[in-house]
Amino acid sequence: MSKRISTFVNPIGSLDVLSKYEVELLTDANHEELQRVFRLCALAILNTGNTSDNSKHIIEQHRDFDVKILQTDRGVKLEIINAPEDAFVDGEMIRGIQEHLFSALRDLIYSHNLVLNSGQFDLDDSNGITSANFHILRNAGVLNPVKYLNLVVCWGGHAINRLEYDYTKDVGYHLGLRNFDICTGCGPGAMKGPMKGAAVAHAKQRIVDSRFIGISEPGIIAAEAPNPIVNKLIIMPDIEKRLESFVRLSHAIVIFPGGVGTAEELLYLLGILLHPENKDLPFPLILTGPEESREYFDQMYKFVELTLGKEATDLMTVIIGNPEEVATHINAEVRKVREYRKDKSDAFFFNWRLHIPYEFQQPFPANHEAMAELNLSSNQPVHQLAAHLRRAFSGIVSGNVKADGIAAIEEKGPFKLKGEQFIMDSLDKLLRSFVEQKRMKIGSDEYDPCYELV
Amino acid sequence: MSKRISTFVNPIGSLDVLSKYEVELLTDANHEELQRVFRLCALAILNTGNTSDNSKHIIEQHRDFDVKILQTDRGVKLEIINAPEDAFVDGEMIRGIQEHLFSALRDLIYSHNLVLNSGQFDLDDSNGITSANFHILRNAGVLNPVKYLNLVVCWGGHAINRLEYDYTKDVGYHLGLRNFDICTGCGPGAMKGPMKGAAVAHAKQRIVDSRFIGISEPGIIAAEAPNPIVNKLIIMPDIEKRLESFVRLSHAIVIFPGGVGTAEELLYLLGILLHPENKDLPFPLILTGPEESREYFDQMYKFVELTLGKEATDLMTVIIGNPEEVATHINAEVRKVREYRKDKSDAFFFNWRLHIPYEFQQPFPANHEAMAELNLSSNQPVHQLAAHLRRAFSGIVSGNVKADGIAAIEEKGPFKLKGEQFIMDSLDKLLRSFVEQKRMKIGSDEYDPCYELV
Amino acid sequence: MSKRISTFVNPIGSLDVLSKYEVELLTDANHEELQRVFRLCALAILNTGNTSDNSKHIIEQHRDFDVKILQTDRGVKLEIINAPEDAFVDGEMIRGIQEHLFSALRDLIYSHNLVLNSGQFDLDDSNGITSANFHILRNAGVLNPVKYLNLVVCWGGHAINRLEYDYTKDVGYHLGLRNFDICTGCGPGAMKGPMKGAAVAHAKQRIVDSRFIGISEPGIIAAEAPNPIVNKLIIMPDIEKRLESFVRLSHAIVIFPGGVGTAEELLYLLGILLHPENKDLPFPLILTGPEESREYFDQMYKFVELTLGKEATDLMTVIIGNPEEVATHINAEVRKVREYRKDKSDAFFFNWRLHIPYEFQQPFPANHEAMAELNLSSNQPVHQLAAHLRRAFSGIVSGNVKADGIAAIEEKGPFKLKGEQFIMDSLDKLLRSFVEQKRMKIGSDEYDPCYELV
Amino acid sequence: MSKRISTFVNPIGSLDVLSKYEVELLTDANHEELQRVFRLCALAILNTGNTSDNSKHIIEQHRDFDVKILQTDRGVKLEIINAPEDAFVDGEMIRGIQEHLFSALRDLIYSHNLVLNSGQFDLDDSNGITSANFHILRNAGVLNPVKYLNLVVCWGGHAINRLEYDYTKDVGYHLGLRNFDICTGCGPGAMKGPMKGAAVAHAKQRIVDSRFIGISEPGIIAAEAPNPIVNKLIIMPDIEKRLESFVRLSHAIVIFPGGVGTAEELLYLLGILLHPENKDLPFPLILTGPEESREYFDQMYKFVELTLGKEATDLMTVIIGNPEEVATHINAEVRKVREYRKDKSDAFFFNWRLHIPYEFQQPFPANHEAMAELNLSSNQPVHQLAAHLRRAFSGIVSGNVKADGIAAIEEKGPFKLKGEQFIMDSLDKLLRSFVEQKRMKIGSDEYDPCYELV
Repeated sequence: MSKRISTFVNPIGSLDVLSKYEVELLTDANHEELQRVFRLCALAILNTGNTSDNSKHIIEQHRDFDVKILQTDRGVKLEIINAPEDAFVDGEMIRGIQEHLFSALRDLIYSHNLVLNSGQFDLDDSNGITSANFHILRNAGVLNPVKYLNLVVCWGGHAINRLEYDYTKDVGYHLGLRNFDICTGCGPGAMKGPMKGAAVAHAKQRIVDSRFIGISEPGIIAAEAPNPIVNKLIIMPDIEKRLESFVRLSHAIVIFPGGVGTAEELLYLLGILLHPENKDLPFPLILTGPEESREYFDQMYKFVELTLGKEATDLMTVIIGNPEEVATHINAEVRKVREYRKDKSDAFFFNWRLHIPYEFQQPFPANHEAMAELNLSSNQPVHQLAAHLRRAFSGIVSGNVKADGIAAIEEKGPFKLKGEQFIMDSLDKLLRSFVEQKRMKIGSDEYDPCYELV
Repeated sequence: MSKRISTFVNPIGSLDVLSKYEVELLTDANHEELQRVFRLCALAILNTGNTSDNSKHIIEQHRDFDVKILQTDRGVKLEIINAPEDAFVDGEMIRGIQEHLFSALRDLIYSHNLVLNSGQFDLDDSNGITSANFHILRNAGVLNPVKYLNLVVCWGGHAINRLEYDYTKDVGYHLGLRNFDICTGCGPGAMKGPMKGAAVAHAKQRIVDSRFIGISEPGIIAAEAPNPIVNKLIIMPDIEKRLESFVRLSHAIVIFPGGVGTAEELLYLLGILLHPENKDLPFPLILTGPEESREYFDQMYKFVELTLGKEATDLMTVIIGNPEEVATHINAEVRKVREYRKDKSDAFFFNWRLHIPYEFQQPFPANHEAMAELNLSSNQPVHQLAAHLRRAFSGIVSGNVKADGIAAIEEKGPFKLKGEQFIMDSLDKLLRSFVEQKRMKIGSDEYDPCYELV
Repeated sequence: MSKRISTFVNPIGSLDVLSKYEVELLTDANHEELQRVFRLCALAILNTGNTSDNSKHIIEQHRDFDVKILQTDRGVKLEIINAPEDAFVDGEMIRGIQEHLFSALRDLIYSHNLVLNSGQFDLDDSNGITSANFHILRNAGVLNPVKYLNLVVCWGGHAINRLEYDYTKDVGYHLGLRNFDICTGCGPGAMKGPMKGAAVAHAKQRIVDSRFIGISEPGIIAAEAPNPIVNKLIIMPDIEKRLESFVRLSHAIVIFPGGVGTAEELLYLLGILLHPENKDLPFPLILTGPEESREYFDQMYKFVELTLGKEATDLMTVIIGNPEEVATHINAEVRKVREYRKDKSDAFFFNWRLHIPYEFQQPFPANHEAMAELNLSSNQPVHQLAAHLRRAFSGIVSGNVKADGIAAIEEKGPFKLKGEQFIMDSLDKLLRSFVEQKRMKIGSDEYDPCYELV
Repeated sequence: MSKRISTFVNPIGSLDVLSKYEVELLTDANHEELQRVFRLCALAILNTGNTSDNSKHIIEQHRDFDVKILQTDRGVKLEIINAPEDAFVDGEMIRGIQEHLFSALRDLIYSHNLVLNSGQFDLDDSNGITSANFHILRNAGVLNPVKYLNLVVCWGGHAINRLEYDYTKDVGYHLGLRNFDICTGCGPGAMKGPMKGAAVAHAKQRIVDSRFIGISEPGIIAAEAPNPIVNKLIIMPDIEKRLESFVRLSHAIVIFPGGVGTAEELLYLLGILLHPENKDLPFPLILTGPEESREYFDQMYKFVELTLGKEATDLMTVIIGNPEEVATHINAEVRKVREYRKDKSDAFFFNWRLHIPYEFQQPFPANHEAMAELNLSSNQPVHQLAAHLRRAFSGIVSGNVKADGIAAIEEKGPFKLKGEQFIMDSLDKLLRSFVEQKRMKIGSDEYDPCYELV
């Protein structure tokens, strides 16, 4: 076991000033759940460089880890107990990690007060949820009136191979040379590569205000420790709010090879874009990877074609083995987005006009009952089928890497999924290919499926 | 009548990004009261250089003034209709005024959501009110972890003479040379002089991050148009929250010659400092003016001595005709405050440990009933007597300059105040001297009292 | 006698790093003259708030003042011995004054190396002198590629009355509201007022990078202690280089009431603008003052008309008693200058195209011989007559306030000036009016002329 | 042949304002040599990503390349003709490269005026040369009064293998985590790796003012195109001034595996440190590389031991295969340097006290005569033998990669070196090992020696 370090850290960024009321949230016996979640996020953040993606295992390994809050003359201070030593250099916490710690605290407190303890937003209403998301993002400092549209969201697996990883760096590099900032889910693999590439390009272009935005949520953060290149870490309250944040912030989305998580994200986006209200809204969506990953995209493309039809594949641009083309293509497409937003007086920094139906916003509890009830059949509008497919993938992600998902599977066995034959066949084929290509979990020589298609 | 200008203005500062929810507050028929208050504050801010302190009159003069909010691709925008031309140079709004406009909008929206529409704070509880104040101030950007304690609150009249005004500038100059920032009620007279003096001193000392904080509230702002030197304008929801903000932000308080408003402020502060829980808390309080105003301080001192006793006068340091001594005295005293806060781990930027009893926080409705019921007698602890006296002065301010106060007096005649003989005598003497020294209202050759002592 | 302070001060600005070679300039016995001049400038700068304009007297008063240079691990440091206490607050030097001190050091070292010890520039050639000036100004940090033309040079007397002073503040205020920066000769009176006014306006407009440029030279600085609002102090090697810097930096020039120094400046500028090569070059020149100073401008106007003719008066715009009109007029005229420079690809920050004949650049030694030889007659081109008149006024300034000029007069009696009758008559009338209006020297009840017209 | 691009570029940094005099240097027929050198440097800078190290070949390949200077209203502008396209993204020059271009211009103009055309410095005198170097470095903006000593100079080959390259990145990373900045010779290989590593570490530590200083000279720059991570490029007039700059700027020096150039640098430094006057001066010098390069360091160590003795090897710390230890070792040693400089009041930013004898400063003309006359024998003080050995390596570098060196070898055959037997044997062994390990030139399958030991 590696060494542990205990120390005190001062706040960085906007969180240096807490009210007594907020300090109580973190010290008071009434708010145990918030404290548990913060402890979990703090551990994930400090566990940088860790290579496991099994949240349950990580938590068990660090039973003696803790974090406490103290009030001082210049503001608050955190006491860190038994933190993994990789977060420190010569006993001092790496500054990027320190920032992440306080970003997590900022978001948890704000979400707690705004979303749970305030009647301000109607969370049973689509507009209410969007409004809540907007406020959380604004409080996190990522909504700024900008002149340019330059935020590319990159999705893709945390467990990709070296070739694919280098490819994501290359795409990031060519985007970075063109002044694009990067937003990802903030873990390793395809979530880190584009940022690394863009960071080098930004250095060459002397861009000093680069935004490397990582958006996580309490359930996933432990399995995907935020990489320290992320300079804006945001913890959204749940997976659906995280997904909405991605699509409302982005000016274009790139999908790299990945596994079920990436499939969840693609289905989520397609489901929204297929909604009739979003028909004319320009939204650049590029699937890309190295020549060696062509097979992966072929299968994904076929799956979408078979289940959601040509209308869906028309929304996707596939570019294989050409990072520079990805960047120039996005450059051209984003110009159209800009024109559209100017034309409609829509904000550059938040995609208000995109309609996200309530079923894509509603938190999906990834348990056996909910999974069993999914309607995976063609007797519904495509965007609704996409919503159900998205949830199926979401459940599998949970069963693979999230602490409570893993516990549920250990207790009750695999999730059961059922539906129309041709859909189940497509799904089966896709999931098998993920297993074969080792895209399910990190370091899993033998992947033990957490689902059954029935 | 001077010219009117209609135009559009972009936000400055933190308010460029509003949620749809917040925009609705300013456009929606459900929030008329908020819109009325914003319109009032906007008018007051644009009415810079105006010399009247009669809110009612100002509002009537500008019936055709209006302000509307619009959504654009880069954020929001205000449409200003029929604004006084002095706020503009060659058709463009003076930038300081533009900032004030959006500061007002920021505070009104935040207070509205936080104080009225959220269950977050218990406004019937002393801690709840303090917490709410803290959040409003933090949102306004005036709570920052600082290394030095350097904020001096200056109180005093808006209607002082030239000699007194020059003296306030001089005190500000000597404070500014010693790196002190200034906070006032943000109108003319003693609220402007210290800032002007400090601004020159800061220029000489090459201080570029000067804070000239002005704290107002909707009821008073029209009568005391914020002077544009103020670079942090804050609109608190009511007079009591404004007073609490002054004392919790300040590291020392200077009182210049003034009238009933200044008397209200002095009584408020003495009442709090006299409370047993604040016994050992260092709090520099200096009364100062030019040699020519010695009479004024003598009378104020005697009034305090007669009504609240030596315990109260011991809290006040009177310095006559020596601006440099005021500055060096404060410099020395603030060092003790710093030691105390370090010792108690209390924040440098917010005086948490000062106990402010609930009766000083509770909004006082300045109407005939409330005024009539004040207990101006010695059969109570001194800090409670101070609380009642404070309210008496508060009511007179309202009857003098606030729109609803003036209306009440016009309708029902002067407020009636009653109490123990020696207190009423002292009060009578003090108020008469204010009238004689023309400290009641601007430009009032004949002051018509809005109160009667019975 | 006021108190004296001795202390050490660290460099501010660009001068923190000196080479051994440069340190030697200030410590080595070979460079006594440079050290004498630096000591003189340092004394002038520290003598802030002083009201005398008699250099000789000031120097005598401070015989025990000295300044030395020391080398440390972080750069150099100055040891100040027996400095006037007004430059300090609680024993610490006012930061603006500290900056001035190091600005003087910067310019003296640079000029010394560049102008005296280097063969780089041919100082007997007009282009060589202009090039040297350019390099000194660039090294001082006042040549920057700008988008806007916004530098107004203000000339006028140091010994003006209160009314006139307030008027210069007002003009500065209206220029400042329109984003103009101010450049003056950096002493009191008309050199300070416009900066004070502009500083208030810039605060209202939230302009934070204001330039208040003061240009002095070793001979005049003692008599005109730089006011601390100046945030860019430049010491040019001599009076002619100072004048050239004014006209090459400025985008417009305002002349307020003044005395012989101001007359010198006006003649200098007219002489240049009258030169045939500058015929079509736009150059806004405004003479302005309060209604009460109308007489002054009438006489100046008449003098110019009589001596240089209508061609000269056509170059001047006189505006009486209307500060705002001065600002709007300049605003409009500077636009033409901008068009002209764009059109000719001439730098916005340096008026390269203005032709300054060599006779206006050549240092004029203000001694009895040189004064006696001036050709004040109409038998020459007007711009040459202007050059001679300029020198006549320059000599009188020297005899009035400069240390060596005063000494020369004390020794040999008044300067003798001779010339054509009508010119001598005009000159006599103008000079008499300066004496009557008390514009010759500060506080001189009885002015004792340092010149005779023969 | 790759595409060529012609365009105009605006200055970045401090060079936007040139005097007419300076513009003439670049346009005038009298300054052809300066123009030739600038054209050469510009080509080298734009030739980024090029993999050749044969200057002669590169110049021949780009005969149609040119660069011209133009004057505009906002300053100067460069016209670039037929530049390699890799310096551009979508037709726009990469900003880092644009900065390098103007850095080169800045240094060439300044050196030209200061070193060649000014009598200011005595270049035949050791102090004069040091002073000239100081002024060039100060003008380039790398001399700043700092609180910390944190500049590590990294030397090593441009033609190292992947393993060694990754090792240099790792060392840079661990230095970067500890807030060290990096200075190198600015080409590829060991000159790039440490900067890349430090850049990632600085990102994690949120260090935004990283200095990645590259020091080159006109003779070497074409063969070692500056990598764009360099954010301070400096072109010194010759190789000896470049070497002096390295040692006077550095707070520690790391030597990675390299070839003759690296050997030259090591000999240069040892020769200086062996001088009696530098006996007690702390100067951290670390030789380091991966385990696989152990052989290289063994040979270098033996060579130094045999030729210069134990006194010399005592100055070197060898660390194999442990990047983190390199960083912690330097951290500890630099503290001693800091103490020493504080103790001696020596500048933190420039090692004034290091004695560099004139023979190490004097430019060495790498021609057949000079090489033949080198005294490679033990009948002299060790620091003088080191000086001669340094020159021998310098000559071989020139014969390998510099345009004029290659031409000389092509014309007259290999340089002849002679000396005492045991020294020649050691030298022979070392040079042979460089050839075997392919450390002589990039991509040279068969290395054809440019020297003979006779």
